[in-house]
Amino acid sequence: MTQRREKTAITPTRQEDYPEWYQQVIKAADMAENSPVRGCMVIKPWGFGIWENIKSTLDQMIKETGHENVYFPLFIPLSFLEKEAAHVEGFAKECAVVTHHRLEEKDGKLIPTGELEEPLIVRPTSETIIGDSFSRWVESYRDLPLLINQWANVVRWEMRPRIFLRTSEFLWQEGHTVHATKQEAKEETLKMLEVYRVLAEEVLAIPVILGEKSAGERFPGAESTYTLEMMMQDRKALQGGTSHYLGQNFARAQGIQFSGKEGELEYAYTTSWGVTTRLIGGMIMCHGDDDGLRIPPRVAPKQIVIIPVIPKPELEEEVLAFAEKVKQQIISQMFYGKPISVHIDKRDRRGGEKNWEWVKKGVPVRIEIGPRDIESDSVMLARRDRGHKEKEKVSLETLGAIIPNLLNEIQKNYFEQAKAFREMHIQRGVETLEALREFFTPKNPDKPEIHGGFVLAKWSEDPESEKILDEMKLTIRCLPLSQSGTKGKCILTGKDAVKDVIIAKSY
Amino acid sequence: MTQRREKTAITPTRQEDYPEWYQQVIKAADMAENSPVRGCMVIKPWGFGIWENIKSTLDQMIKETGHENVYFPLFIPLSFLEKEAAHVEGFAKECAVVTHHRLEEKDGKLIPTGELEEPLIVRPTSETIIGDSFSRWVESYRDLPLLINQWANVVRWEMRPRIFLRTSEFLWQEGHTVHATKQEAKEETLKMLEVYRVLAEEVLAIPVILGEKSAGERFPGAESTYTLEMMMQDRKALQGGTSHYLGQNFARAQGIQFSGKEGELEYAYTTSWGVTTRLIGGMIMCHGDDDGLRIPPRVAPKQIVIIPVIPKPELEEEVLAFAEKVKQQIISQMFYGKPISVHIDKRDRRGGEKNWEWVKKGVPVRIEIGPRDIESDSVMLARRDRGHKEKEKVSLETLGAIIPNLLNEIQKNYFEQAKAFREMHIQRGVETLEALREFFTPKNPDKPEIHGGFVLAKWSEDPESEKILDEMKLTIRCLPLSQSGTKGKCILTGKDAVKDVIIAKSY
Repeated sequence: MTQRREKTAITPTRQEDYPEWYQQVIKAADMAENSPVRGCMVIKPWGFGIWENIKSTLDQMIKETGHENVYFPLFIPLSFLEKEAAHVEGFAKECAVVTHHRLEEKDGKLIPTGELEEPLIVRPTSETIIGDSFSRWVESYRDLPLLINQWANVVRWEMRPRIFLRTSEFLWQEGHTVHATKQEAKEETLKMLEVYRVLAEEVLAIPVILGEKSAGERFPGAESTYTLEMMMQDRKALQGGTSHYLGQNFARAQGIQFSGKEGELEYAYTTSWGVTTRLIGGMIMCHGDDDGLRIPPRVAPKQIVIIPVIPKPELEEEVLAFAEKVKQQIISQMFYGKPISVHIDKRDRRGGEKNWEWVKKGVPVRIEIGPRDIESDSVMLARRDRGHKEKEKVSLETLGAIIPNLLNEIQKNYFEQAKAFREMHIQRGVETLEALREFFTPKNPDKPEIHGGFVLAKWSEDPESEKILDEMKLTIRCLPLSQSGTKGKCILTGKDAVKDVIIAKSY
Repeated sequence: MTQRREKTAITPTRQEDYPEWYQQVIKAADMAENSPVRGCMVIKPWGFGIWENIKSTLDQMIKETGHENVYFPLFIPLSFLEKEAAHVEGFAKECAVVTHHRLEEKDGKLIPTGELEEPLIVRPTSETIIGDSFSRWVESYRDLPLLINQWANVVRWEMRPRIFLRTSEFLWQEGHTVHATKQEAKEETLKMLEVYRVLAEEVLAIPVILGEKSAGERFPGAESTYTLEMMMQDRKALQGGTSHYLGQNFARAQGIQFSGKEGELEYAYTTSWGVTTRLIGGMIMCHGDDDGLRIPPRVAPKQIVIIPVIPKPELEEEVLAFAEKVKQQIISQMFYGKPISVHIDKRDRRGGEKNWEWVKKGVPVRIEIGPRDIESDSVMLARRDRGHKEKEKVSLETLGAIIPNLLNEIQKNYFEQAKAFREMHIQRGVETLEALREFFTPKNPDKPEIHGGFVLAKWSEDPESEKILDEMKLTIRCLPLSQSGTKGKCILTGKDAVKDVIIAKSY
């Protein structure tokens, strides 16, 4: 006898086809869609609401660490990009180029005209245009540190786009700072990495491994790049954000100099750091289940949805009045310093239909209210972290008081579940290339995307050796900040090695 | 004996050279600067902080009126723009056009390559790309109204740029809505105009005249355009925002159709409305004085600045401790639902220097603290609405309690002053072209920018007659919503006319 599979909302399931499951979750939750402009997405209200919450939380953290927001031009003159050789090499293949500034009709067709003397690049990142201002703003050590951030759209032409994860245009914040000393700049780089860790783990409930990128994976022009690596449910790695120590590279290329206390002219040290709308993709892939999205309460556009169930039209008024009473109970409670967001779904649709919709949208708590609940002065409460079926009767008297704790529990559960999943799929003690290959070989040939997970191994830091991984479509994700310090054999060269590295397939 | 002019911070004064005064105020307040990209500006922290406050206040109002935020692509395919004939004609001359998607080195020079099959326009406004989605999202009357908004950057190539007022790239919000009926769409257009009035008058303290644009001044493709017209201190008009009733024009061009209650297919009615970073320019020109910026408390990045005066280093600790005590007193008070923002300026500079800096930056209230104030348990308080000299002694005991009211008073004073100025310079009873010409002729040939102000006159609505104004560099700013209904003679044609119109020079 085969076990009957319980019906779930998303087809296919994660097991059946993870990449397609991802697309279907986004569609079922009505978060975003592909636009007619190749590689660019339309972020719909439910998806954008999540971004607004990520943004406002991170923005506060960025300000609390002393940074101020600014806005720099969308366009970068081609010559600016050329100033830092590694930088332009890194971005030249994915630049949207503006060459004309008007349209003219010719033979009944509109054609670009007004050719620009110098083409403009739509910013792929803003080090060069911001650095130009920095070179004028910074004169003396008294002007330092200079700590700024901007929220902006950027464009990196993408040949294989994937909604939220890889889009030609995406939204992000980019921090840019200038310092008088190497030490201070390095501290800043790590401080912002820690801010991102808090955002990822405590707000998005995604556990991260903090680490440094190997030379081959550095930001073009950086001296060192730090990263947050996240494990998705297909065990692949997602880079969740990066923080770059740029040394004096950009300062030299752009003339960011300051006079020190003794009057001597010195090049400054700069940093830059950013996270993007890609985090939404990470959140989907980390927490989603076969019923759709599961949004951590701290970023949910609506934390609680009340679904009035009205069996007869004449009961509508009474049920809606009770729903309003329930809403007031909850709204008076706070969660992370803000009133809890509650929505009463009054649309003229069946209760069951609405219920499934909010399951798929991943709202943390659903509350059903019908005539029988009014009689017993209680509600039926369903937690998204407990699947789609389980409901629990809660008396109205205690409801308000338990809600903040409930949201906290759900937030924590998502994090703990993701962390347990990751721990289960990090393999230690892989010491040879053969063992590595074995770990990443799919056990089921029908499901090539299901493989081992992360490998924690030793590496000799030989830059040439990284290329051995190309053929297996693996990369060194990072050298974790937290190192064991033990000695061992380099998994790529067999040489003596001390450094721990994470090796994985990645997005 | 000539009267000695009091020294003020900005050279030239408004009287001496208004356009140059405007540039100098922006510079003195460190708000923004021109970038190396022609027509694009860099918005610095003090300017951007004002935009953040405008944005968060307006965003809340937009959400409270039922709209949800979304994000659409930066790029618009050329063919989309062509769908609405008047629309493309209106924007063709100012479009940034992306024609290539990569750069390649050739003879040591980077050149654009990877030509796009279809050029992409950097959005000058998003009706066409959003309308494309609307045509897929809207199926039935149940999907309506559809109410969305986005905060974005847009580009309209500008040959004579002017910071905040006219820049090739600017920041704005654009609302786009779809309705089942003409009436509902018209109501929406006026509802959002009223939201903008509240923003302008109650938040930015700028009095506005609400009205409809004449045919010659409509948004390309709109059936009617409503505007907020503001008077600047050089008596010229600034259009502060617009709200467009688009009728079925865009719906027909893009196929936005819905099935009604009886199943019949109908074209929908759409609206769009926006305000931009131009509002910051309006705020500067409406409230600034010869000492620089004056920011209404509701949008000030810092509402109160405490300036510790430390005559001897050994007093530093005591003065700073007192400053902190004063800050705590104030911060516990609320202003429009938010804690009052207080900043202690601890920089190592002379008190006088710091004081002037905050005067020029337009911070609403400055509080000076020195050893003598500590002795008397009081502070010296200076209000920006009372020039730069007047100070008042306030005991610490009463300080916290008076602050919210003080900010309210300053907010109100700015509005009342601007309103009185405007009333003084609106001329009624101008009935002939000669009188109109006379009114706009500078009385002093050395100061051509100082002219009459606004004229409230009668107009026959003959569209051809508007052109008569071109030669005087005047325009009909609007037909005010509030009409007298009296009969009179058209100022342009001499015919009988009923409509009141505002005629002015404008930005």
